[in-house]
Amino acid sequence: MKYILFDIDDTLFPSSEFSTLARKNAINAMIGMGMLGDSGTLMARLAMIIEKKGSNYGRHFDDLCRQAGVKEPARYTAAAIAAYHDTKTAIQPFPKVPLTLLRLKEAGYRLYVATNGNAVKQWDKLIRLRLALYFDAVFVSEEMGRSKSPAFYRKVLKTLGARADECMMVGDREDADISPAKKVGITTVRVLAGKHSGVPTQADHTVKDISGLFRILEQL
Amino acid sequence: MKYILFDIDDTLFPSSEFSTLARKNAINAMIGMGMLGDSGTLMARLAMIIEKKGSNYGRHFDDLCRQAGVKEPARYTAAAIAAYHDTKTAIQPFPKVPLTLLRLKEAGYRLYVATNGNAVKQWDKLIRLRLALYFDAVFVSEEMGRSKSPAFYRKVLKTLGARADECMMVGDREDADISPAKKVGITTVRVLAGKHSGVPTQADHTVKDISGLFRILEQL
Repeated sequence: MKYILFDIDDTLFPSSEFSTLARKNAINAMIGMGMLGDSGTLMARLAMIIEKKGSNYGRHFDDLCRQAGVKEPARYTAAAIAAYHDTKTAIQPFPKVPLTLLRLKEAGYRLYVATNGNAVKQWDKLIRLRLALYFDAVFVSEEMGRSKSPAFYRKVLKTLGARADECMMVGDREDADISPAKKVGITTVRVLAGKHSGVPTQADHTVKDISGLFRILEQL
Repeated sequence: MKYILFDIDDTLFPSSEFSTLARKNAINAMIGMGMLGDSGTLMARLAMIIEKKGSNYGRHFDDLCRQAGVKEPARYTAAAIAAYHDTKTAIQPFPKVPLTLLRLKEAGYRLYVATNGNAVKQWDKLIRLRLALYFDAVFVSEEMGRSKSPAFYRKVLKTLGARADECMMVGDREDADISPAKKVGITTVRVLAGKHSGVPTQADHTVKDISGLFRILEQL
C-alpha cells in the first residue's frame, strides 16, 4: 500500500454537524434582523427548500424570504449568509485527523484527496481545516469531468501512475467512496460517521475514525 | 433637519484600510500554500489587475494565478479568497460611529443609508459592523436602478416623503455623496477619511468623523 485517498466531508471533519449548526445560526440571524416566525418553523421550511432544490442550490435564503413574503429580502439574506459562512469558516477536523495524517506522512504514505464538488470550495475546506499541506494532490469531480465513479477512480490511478492494489480509498459514503473504488480493485475503508453512517457497507474495512487506518495498514 | 442619510465605506468604517489588509492577507495565504514570488511583487501585480478590471470584478485571484502560470489554481485561489473574506468579515466601525448613531436616534432623527453597490453586500457590511438596526431603510443603487446621482437622491426624497431641506447626506466621496445630493438641495456633510480624503469639496460642512454631526446639527 502506497497511496491513500481520502474523502473530505464526514471523513476529515463532521460536515453534517456543521451544516445543521450553520443553518440554525443563519435562521437566528434573520430573526435578529426582524424576520417574523420562530426558529423551529423557519428551520423546517428551509429544510424543505434544501430538499427540493439540492444543497448546492445557491439561493435557499432568498426562497425562504419569498415564502415569508418579506419586503426587503437583502437585509435578511445578508444576515443569513453572514451567519452561515461564519459557522462554516469555523470548521474543525475530527480530533484525531491531523495527527493521523502526519503519522501517515512520516510512515512514507502518499496522501491524496478524492472528492465530489467544486474545486475552490473543497480546497477552501482543506485550507480552513489546516490540512491542505498534507496532500500531494486533490482530485475533485469538477476538474476530473465526472463525479466519483469507476471511471473517476481509473483516471486517478492513471494520473498517479499507480496500480489499484497500491491504493486505498477512505470515505463515509457507500455510493461515492466505497462501491465505485472497490469495482476498480482499490482497497476500501468506510468511515462510519455522519448522516450516511447507517447505510450498509461492502467495504473491505470499517473504522470509526481515520486513526483506525494504522491497525488496517499493519495487517495488509 | 429630520432625515440623515449615510454612506457606508470610509464613512461608517475604514473601508480603504481593510481592503489593503485583506489583499495582503490573501497574498500571504497564497504564499503559504506554496505560491512562488514575494509578497511585494504579488501585491503590485494584484493592484494592476484590480486597477484594470475594477474592484467589483470577481476573479482577481484567478487572474493572478494565470499570470504566474501555476498549474493547480484552485488551491491558491481558495487560500486567497478565504484569507480575504476572513479579513473583511472582521470589519469594525470607526470608533465613534456606534455611539453617534445611538445618540442621533435618541435625539429623534431618522437614519438611513444611501450607498452604491450590491444590496446583499452592503447589508452584509452593516450587519458585520453591528449597525444594521440603527437604520430605518437602506437605499442601494442596485435596487434603486441607478448609481448615486441627482435622480437617485430625488427618488430617495420621494420614497421618504421628505423635502430636501429636511435631509442631510453624510459621506466621504465628492462625486457620489456630496455633489449630486447638493444639486437637489440636500444639506451635505463630507467625512474627510479614506483614500478620497484629499479631493476638494463643495460640501456645506466637513467633519473628521461623524461625531462632528452634533456640532453641525446644533447650529442649523
